[in-house]
Amino acid sequence: MSGGPLEGVRVVDLTAVVVGPICSRTLADQGAEVIKVEAPGGGDLLRTMAQGSRNPGMSGKFMQFNRNKRSFCVDIKHPEGQAALLALIRTADVFVSNIRPNALDRAGLGWEALRAINPRLIHCAILAFGRGGPYFNRPAYDPIIQSLSGVAGTFHRANGEPRFVPMVMTDHITGLIAAQCIGFALYRRERTGVGEAIEVPMFENMASFVMSEHLGAGTFDPPVGPLGDGRLLSPDYRPVPTRDGYITVGPNTNAQAFAFFDAIGRPALKTDPRFLNAAARTANAAEYLKVRAAAMREKTTAEWLAILGAADVPAAAYNSLDDLLQDPHLAATGFFAPEDHPSEGRIRRTATPNRFSGGMREDALPAPRLGADTRAVLREAGLDDAAIDRLVEAGIVATPEARA
Amino acid sequence: MSGGPLEGVRVVDLTAVVVGPICSRTLADQGAEVIKVEAPGGGDLLRTMAQGSRNPGMSGKFMQFNRNKRSFCVDIKHPEGQAALLALIRTADVFVSNIRPNALDRAGLGWEALRAINPRLIHCAILAFGRGGPYFNRPAYDPIIQSLSGVAGTFHRANGEPRFVPMVMTDHITGLIAAQCIGFALYRRERTGVGEAIEVPMFENMASFVMSEHLGAGTFDPPVGPLGDGRLLSPDYRPVPTRDGYITVGPNTNAQAFAFFDAIGRPALKTDPRFLNAAARTANAAEYLKVRAAAMREKTTAEWLAILGAADVPAAAYNSLDDLLQDPHLAATGFFAPEDHPSEGRIRRTATPNRFSGGMREDALPAPRLGADTRAVLREAGLDDAAIDRLVEAGIVATPEARA
Repeated sequence: MSGGPLEGVRVVDLTAVVVGPICSRTLADQGAEVIKVEAPGGGDLLRTMAQGSRNPGMSGKFMQFNRNKRSFCVDIKHPEGQAALLALIRTADVFVSNIRPNALDRAGLGWEALRAINPRLIHCAILAFGRGGPYFNRPAYDPIIQSLSGVAGTFHRANGEPRFVPMVMTDHITGLIAAQCIGFALYRRERTGVGEAIEVPMFENMASFVMSEHLGAGTFDPPVGPLGDGRLLSPDYRPVPTRDGYITVGPNTNAQAFAFFDAIGRPALKTDPRFLNAAARTANAAEYLKVRAAAMREKTTAEWLAILGAADVPAAAYNSLDDLLQDPHLAATGFFAPEDHPSEGRIRRTATPNRFSGGMREDALPAPRLGADTRAVLREAGLDDAAIDRLVEAGIVATPEARA
Repeated sequence: MSGGPLEGVRVVDLTAVVVGPICSRTLADQGAEVIKVEAPGGGDLLRTMAQGSRNPGMSGKFMQFNRNKRSFCVDIKHPEGQAALLALIRTADVFVSNIRPNALDRAGLGWEALRAINPRLIHCAILAFGRGGPYFNRPAYDPIIQSLSGVAGTFHRANGEPRFVPMVMTDHITGLIAAQCIGFALYRRERTGVGEAIEVPMFENMASFVMSEHLGAGTFDPPVGPLGDGRLLSPDYRPVPTRDGYITVGPNTNAQAFAFFDAIGRPALKTDPRFLNAAARTANAAEYLKVRAAAMREKTTAEWLAILGAADVPAAAYNSLDDLLQDPHLAATGFFAPEDHPSEGRIRRTATPNRFSGGMREDALPAPRLGADTRAVLREAGLDDAAIDRLVEAGIVATPEARA
């Protein structure tokens, strides 16, 4: 009884690193029971691949992406391990993986195989590339997808060289979308009584993301102008230097733009044909950005924040990662909640950002050590202690005590 | 009968620009009936604010974010317009808005008011800032949230100055998350029979996004090292120059890294303690990136793609926006589908990226002209033609013919 909209949903989670774990963490945060399946010998690469930990295998980054989950450590290449996994999948509502499709089929974990043992199962496969094109089944990581989907190219347009967003943005977004798709399929299953297969490809999702914003004039065939949203791709679309730092200003509506022109001492711009309504300001975006940049240089960031705040013009300084820990809004809402982790000591848990009035998950689980729930999961699958001991001794499953 | 997992779900969509429209487009693409509520006098700002259109009010960007929706153009500030909207909400499963909370309450559209007329309603409010902190109810746009949530700050760490991602990334991600939350609430409603309120704040969602990736050593209190994922924040983490352009390489596993060392003619690195496993390569990420960058300069992008492709090492050139239209994988999968729009002529529709084996939406609707469905929506709400004509003549509702 977790509480949360997904209470009662059982997820078998054969994913690692970010794209899958953020999907299953989202489900877990909203009440699902998530059983993370990890291989002996280290488990999820993110346990060790990320820097910053107190104990081996428990990196801070791993802990962020894997709270509220249980860990079942099992060698699924061993027939008895495979059998244990299938027993678990028989009891599950959702199976999610981020394994290449041909490898998933080889492991006997494709949709056709699993629906035969559990027709109510929702089978979600997160892929690099979708079916039907030449990249299908190719391996890819976030920077590859940032490159192919146009993310790096938008930086080239804006700043003269291709860049990545310094996050695993395409993994992260695709994982959030996978959780979204699973929610839709759970809804449909309540109505039809049967499960289904979902395929969530990173490349296509990010091409859709980028092109929804930037196809623009190329929506029309032939295009009615150059592709790309000129405002977002302008080299001047960025935090603007002030006398002592930077500021971001967003005067978009007429009320905000006119208050802004007053605040910078240029009231005549309110009747300037380039700037007198939203359409004019869009058509003259480059000039509007230059007017803003010129004005901001004249005072400090703090001075402008006070002036613009009083005029109800959206404005902000930018937060560094360290600043975020001190942000007054996040502090007031308890965004960084202290938690005493059973093995890792005092940590910061970030809040679940979205509120559901019908009830939220109540039993916050700590990010699990590798195999922390192996015994409990096997017991729930019907194995007795002697059988479990035998699997542990044979190295087919592992527990933290057994030094997985 | 749309097909799609959300078939039969009726959404009243009081949103504009990007954050709300990408939420409702996602629901629409997956089969929901979405009724976009727009004000007379121009409707959604995105109709005119974005450059690139054949006819006024039908920008390419608007059309991308509003396909598969109906448009109901009504002055909800007029009592009769408000009554028509409430009649519609009585028939809806979901109401979604991106209006400031105090304005939403003033308009009589808060959760308490609407649940009284429709207890099964899912009321989703997309906010800039969540309840309980000092920023609640403040206005904000994407660049403000990119600044406050740490996105701009990660560029400062990586490249020495704060930058924005050249997309309305925080709008776009938050809208996708709002659709996710609505799916979870629809699932719960099937079990409980009642609706609920969801609040989806942009700032908190993006702080969670950034900090899940970058809190890292600061997960621990006190921190065990500097915040931020050093690999992602390295100035060398980017597409690497070749002899004639750029390339992105991602040799992450041992098999890939060792094949890469062979391909660049430095097999001795396979036994170099800095690079011999994933943990070592993470600890020595800066040096690993430098080795990669030095090697790539020696051949052209096409030469490296051939060599690394043959060695099964993930590698890619980056696509510009124009390149994407020619990408062989997207071409083979029909990602950019030609469509004859009833008023805008030949256009490109981007594909719904995710596949559901239980059935997809079949009746693709064109992005609507302002008020295209006003008459049909009012008829469905029980008004007769004479009553509708009177509302049109009074300017309380509008249709395309009435030049909204």
